Amino acid sequence: MDLQAWLADRTPMIEAVLDRVLPPIDRAPSSLHGAMRHILFPGGKRLRPALAMAAAEAVGAPAQTALPIAAAVELVHAYSLVHDDLPCMDDDDLRRGRPTVHVVYGEATAVLAGDALQSLAFAVLLSEADAALAARAGADLAKAIGAAGLVGGQVDDLAAGTADASNSADLDAILSIHERKTAALISVSVAGGARLGGAGAAVVDQMAQFGREIGVAFQIADDLLDADEHEGSSLVPLLGAEACRFRAETLLATALARVERFGDRAEPLRELARFAVRRSG
Amino acid sequence: MDLQAWLADRTPMIEAVLDRVLPPIDRAPSSLHGAMRHILFPGGKRLRPALAMAAAEAVGAPAQTALPIAAAVELVHAYSLVHDDLPCMDDDDLRRGRPTVHVVYGEATAVLAGDALQSLAFAVLLSEADAALAARAGADLAKAIGAAGLVGGQVDDLAAGTADASNSADLDAILSIHERKTAALISVSVAGGARLGGAGAAVVDQMAQFGREIGVAFQIADDLLDADEHEGSSLVPLLGAEACRFRAETLLATALARVERFGDRAEPLRELARFAVRRSG
Repeated sequence: MDLQAWLADRTPMIEAVLDRVLPPIDRAPSSLHGAMRHILFPGGKRLRPALAMAAAEAVGAPAQTALPIAAAVELVHAYSLVHDDLPCMDDDDLRRGRPTVHVVYGEATAVLAGDALQSLAFAVLLSEADAALAARAGADLAKAIGAAGLVGGQVDDLAAGTADASNSADLDAILSIHERKTAALISVSVAGGARLGGAGAAVVDQMAQFGREIGVAFQIADDLLDADEHEGSSLVPLLGAEACRFRAETLLATALARVERFGDRAEPLRELARFAVRRSG
Repeated sequence: MDLQAWLADRTPMIEAVLDRVLPPIDRAPSSLHGAMRHILFPGGKRLRPALAMAAAEAVGAPAQTALPIAAAVELVHAYSLVHDDLPCMDDDDLRRGRPTVHVVYGEATAVLAGDALQSLAFAVLLSEADAALAARAGADLAKAIGAAGLVGGQVDDLAAGTADASNSADLDAILSIHERKTAALISVSVAGGARLGGAGAAVVDQMAQFGREIGVAFQIADDLLDADEHEGSSLVPLLGAEACRFRAETLLATALARVERFGDRAEPLRELARFAVRRSG
């Protein structure tokens, strides 16, 4: 299949939802609204929303069904980037070649923009999807991004970054950071898309597991591309590039086998997984 | 009625839920979990949870019905305090006589603890209440605390605090800050309690309006008690103490009249409103 054509058809849908739900810059407080839009437009690959839409299609629903969770996971991803870039965290001045939110809007507005983006994620999901399905997808999302998930992973990632070499994280500790900081949100993207698409509990669980596997593989691929970054929580210095490539490919193969039974309808989901793990930039 | 006896019976319920849902300090990452617990134990007045429980009782449901929204609003309140105290915001070293979270745990952990508390609020509400009701209460909560509510109010409050006197906020601007920064969360506490208690849309709307009125009155009362704080967004320097007291009493009377028809069952709700607005500390 032609993944680029598939994406060219679906990406404008998510862009349109994000543009509609983000408050306009010409409404006050415009600094807050500008900061929220700065991190989302222009965006990155929109990988998480694409996975949500592909998961809905894999279970036989139109991509549109997944838009509330697709928008929610992209808003959460955006909030986490804004907070990770803060001076008290990774202290990054640039992201995707542009000044980070706190550089443009100041630290207080960056903290608050991240806070508002997290709230907006839940507002969109809970207002725009079927109430009972949205409550379950929202509960999964909230757990994935809290102390046991995304935020806990970031705490340990920061600690790994400041630990000296003699005290650096071991294999299990690094995998645990990948699972929480990266894979948990990717997992709820896929599972949430399937859930809003009408899948039952067993399929949702399979999709969640698929998402965890490709999430960890995606993070390993990211560390291979960016070997100088996040040394403390990267497998690359610990295992070497070749072993990391093998591990990512093994996780990808396991994940692909897990969704084999969904047939052709799941081909975009599988292609996205291959793209996420094998991309070169 | 005896409000202290009513509170002595209900407050332990909310304390128990908060203790159950907050991650234990002896589980890793313990700094994160310690920071989350630091702001919640010992707590403040637990006013918002009490209002949620009283609203459920006012519509004929047991207080327990409201616990998921009661815990959620207290967790959101806690997150907002942690972020408001940060060096880049109000830069407060003390809260309720104890060092603030960032003083004890560092700035990065304070930002992340606030983030995780916000997620936990949605996790509790969406996991522990009836799914369809929780989705509606969660959508209301998410809107109340986002860019158009709590966070937007904080942005304008910070701006008012740094504006010089010649450029200080006028009456409408200050009321708008009160409505968003304080009253929006109090309003969803009351409305959410009624909603989980089974109230229909018209009653939920009445409760929301009651909450907005007592929320603004509560903030005016707060500014009267703390006349040196937040001068930029306080009505006290603008109108004088006497006019502020009159305005708070008028709002309280309007709010009390709005819930008159709920009869004796709503007496705890009315007593809480009187306490919130007339307290001396």
